[in-house]
Amino acid sequence: MFLVSAMHVKKLRLLTPGPTPLYPPAVRAMAGSDIHHRTEDFRSIYRRVLKNLAHFMGTAKDVVLFSASGTGAMEAAVSNLFSEGDKVLVVSAGKFGERWAALTRAFGLDVAVVEAPYGDAVSPEKVAEALGAEPNTQGVFVQATESSTGVVHDIGAMAEIIRKTQAIFVVDAITGLGTSHIDIDGWGLDVVVGGSQKALMIPPGLSFVAISEKAWARTQDEAGGSFYFNFRKYKEAGEAGESPFTPAISLLLGLDSTLAYIREIGPEKLIANAQFLACATRKAAEALSVQPFAKATPAGALTSICAPDGIDSGEIVKQFDDRFGSIIANGQGVMKGKIFRIAHLGYFDFSDLFGTMAGLEIILESLGHPIALGAGVQAVQQTYIEMYSNLEISD
Amino acid sequence: MFLVSAMHVKKLRLLTPGPTPLYPPAVRAMAGSDIHHRTEDFRSIYRRVLKNLAHFMGTAKDVVLFSASGTGAMEAAVSNLFSEGDKVLVVSAGKFGERWAALTRAFGLDVAVVEAPYGDAVSPEKVAEALGAEPNTQGVFVQATESSTGVVHDIGAMAEIIRKTQAIFVVDAITGLGTSHIDIDGWGLDVVVGGSQKALMIPPGLSFVAISEKAWARTQDEAGGSFYFNFRKYKEAGEAGESPFTPAISLLLGLDSTLAYIREIGPEKLIANAQFLACATRKAAEALSVQPFAKATPAGALTSICAPDGIDSGEIVKQFDDRFGSIIANGQGVMKGKIFRIAHLGYFDFSDLFGTMAGLEIILESLGHPIALGAGVQAVQQTYIEMYSNLEISD
Repeated sequence: MFLVSAMHVKKLRLLTPGPTPLYPPAVRAMAGSDIHHRTEDFRSIYRRVLKNLAHFMGTAKDVVLFSASGTGAMEAAVSNLFSEGDKVLVVSAGKFGERWAALTRAFGLDVAVVEAPYGDAVSPEKVAEALGAEPNTQGVFVQATESSTGVVHDIGAMAEIIRKTQAIFVVDAITGLGTSHIDIDGWGLDVVVGGSQKALMIPPGLSFVAISEKAWARTQDEAGGSFYFNFRKYKEAGEAGESPFTPAISLLLGLDSTLAYIREIGPEKLIANAQFLACATRKAAEALSVQPFAKATPAGALTSICAPDGIDSGEIVKQFDDRFGSIIANGQGVMKGKIFRIAHLGYFDFSDLFGTMAGLEIILESLGHPIALGAGVQAVQQTYIEMYSNLEISD
Repeated sequence: MFLVSAMHVKKLRLLTPGPTPLYPPAVRAMAGSDIHHRTEDFRSIYRRVLKNLAHFMGTAKDVVLFSASGTGAMEAAVSNLFSEGDKVLVVSAGKFGERWAALTRAFGLDVAVVEAPYGDAVSPEKVAEALGAEPNTQGVFVQATESSTGVVHDIGAMAEIIRKTQAIFVVDAITGLGTSHIDIDGWGLDVVVGGSQKALMIPPGLSFVAISEKAWARTQDEAGGSFYFNFRKYKEAGEAGESPFTPAISLLLGLDSTLAYIREIGPEKLIANAQFLACATRKAAEALSVQPFAKATPAGALTSICAPDGIDSGEIVKQFDDRFGSIIANGQGVMKGKIFRIAHLGYFDFSDLFGTMAGLEIILESLGHPIALGAGVQAVQQTYIEMYSNLEISD
């Protein structure tokens, strides 16, 4: 069927919500990895990365950096701060909420779960209720952005409830950082987890955690909790410009490059960029009569869209690859085949979205979903133009 | 004025008709340049490159490869085959035609020029006339595709006239190769010049020439003509898998990579890809009421479009950069400010064109040219869909 795909030059375009498109200067920086990590040259890079990471996250708290994927840092939050039998609350609205539940259970914690169906979010009220019912709760785990569905939790409102309790508030912001407003210090978040392969525009393999005083008080010394992921070791070594264990040098150099770029444009503009693209995508979905999946506040990081009735979203994903060389994301877990996800986080721009939308229109039409060719692109263009006019007036 | 450009993530996109977008595996191959050029490993690469270059050009003739930009190979054609005082005819329809005139005059040849105004092409009849008027003409120089204007010459028809004479037919196909049908052997072309930074998707720095028996008979031994660009030296060394002088190793490795890719998809499909994109661009221009510049047969390599009345094309070029990070080409020489050029040669695909067209619409509207947002994109989409249906039937 897809003779045309063999016919055309197809550029591979990685358009998924993680890994995300790579920032080219970071890729070039990664090639310069012939540097030793126990040298003063590297120490100055490492210190700058920690400082710029905190700037990117908008926090004055300590930030520790692991050579590990995001789940490694999630595990660190559990192993450093909690012990077997601790009562904790997991707030779950999708596949990554389920990961918090599996992870906390794996460490023997006593886990209660408040959950929302896929596409929805757990309300702060539900969290308050659960904490009221179990005052001995030691920790609350949540996703800022649930990337399996494309919704955000109201982290600020949850924090207001949690910070009055003894519970440590642990936020997986792997997808949320750089795509939504997260006021770590203002809201009093205790543990905020991020990863390299999202808004930071480099490959997977680095993750990092901002840690509050309240959380530090729970940490154990080097002998306890965790060996590789021990927060105290990383804090102490970090102050000396080092990693306690051999760091992923190439990724560090790439991160140094993207953090410099983000400093240049400003973290708030990186967030606005994702939000604008998300807004434009929702308007395009409306113009194409396809339904956004989010029932709660939609994410800036990605937009999940329901496949039209009778169409498997996997067919849309496959055609993007076959026709245009574009890799977009299917639904995960129970949502596989039902939704597809258009990403906006990190190194995405309007030209990407114009191309994605034009391709989506061709695919939807070929699958029998009635659309007007160009209508989705036009909605994206109009959103771009509106933002542009607003900026001229307000900025 | 362009606050929005500071606001957004803008991906640098090189969308000019040379240098062209780079093929990523070639870029990665170029990083592996720690290889010595007088080793058997390198010789086997060099032999493969020469063989695949001939395959890409569709010729059984000898191909020699220079570490030099395209003008170097153009000079080689002059210095190897002609001597001071030789009567030659330059066929000129733009800036690169003018380069043939300047180059042949620099070597002291006795140059007659037949020219067409920018945007037009010189007819084969005019060439026949000029050759009739001067039977002692030793060579004819022409561009297959004049990239300053985006038109093609009828090389086949010119060849039919020239091959009956003593004249050597020298074709600058730097932009024409991989973007238009050029039957080097069938038409009996004598010297065909190509470069690396066009349909071959790698940076500038390599150029190559296919040479006929008729042309070889004019070449001089090592002592004459040219030292660095001496055809015979390159032929002899090439047969041994070598370059007579140190070759640009990284570019060679990149070329090896793109030639493998072109073998895989087929040179005729690379040409069709450019032609399809050019066709779609012309239809989009019509939908946006902007005038293609080509008065003669338009090129597959690029489409020149006239800036609407009262708009400087430089403003369109500048806005592409400011708003979207896209580098597109202004007119050259006397056409600067009057036309802009959308490229299709090499590593370009439909997603590129969707994005370029959506951006162009926004720019034209902002400059007061009345358009319907999405109309150009829609024309590109319809062209894509039509080609796709035709392919299903015919392939």
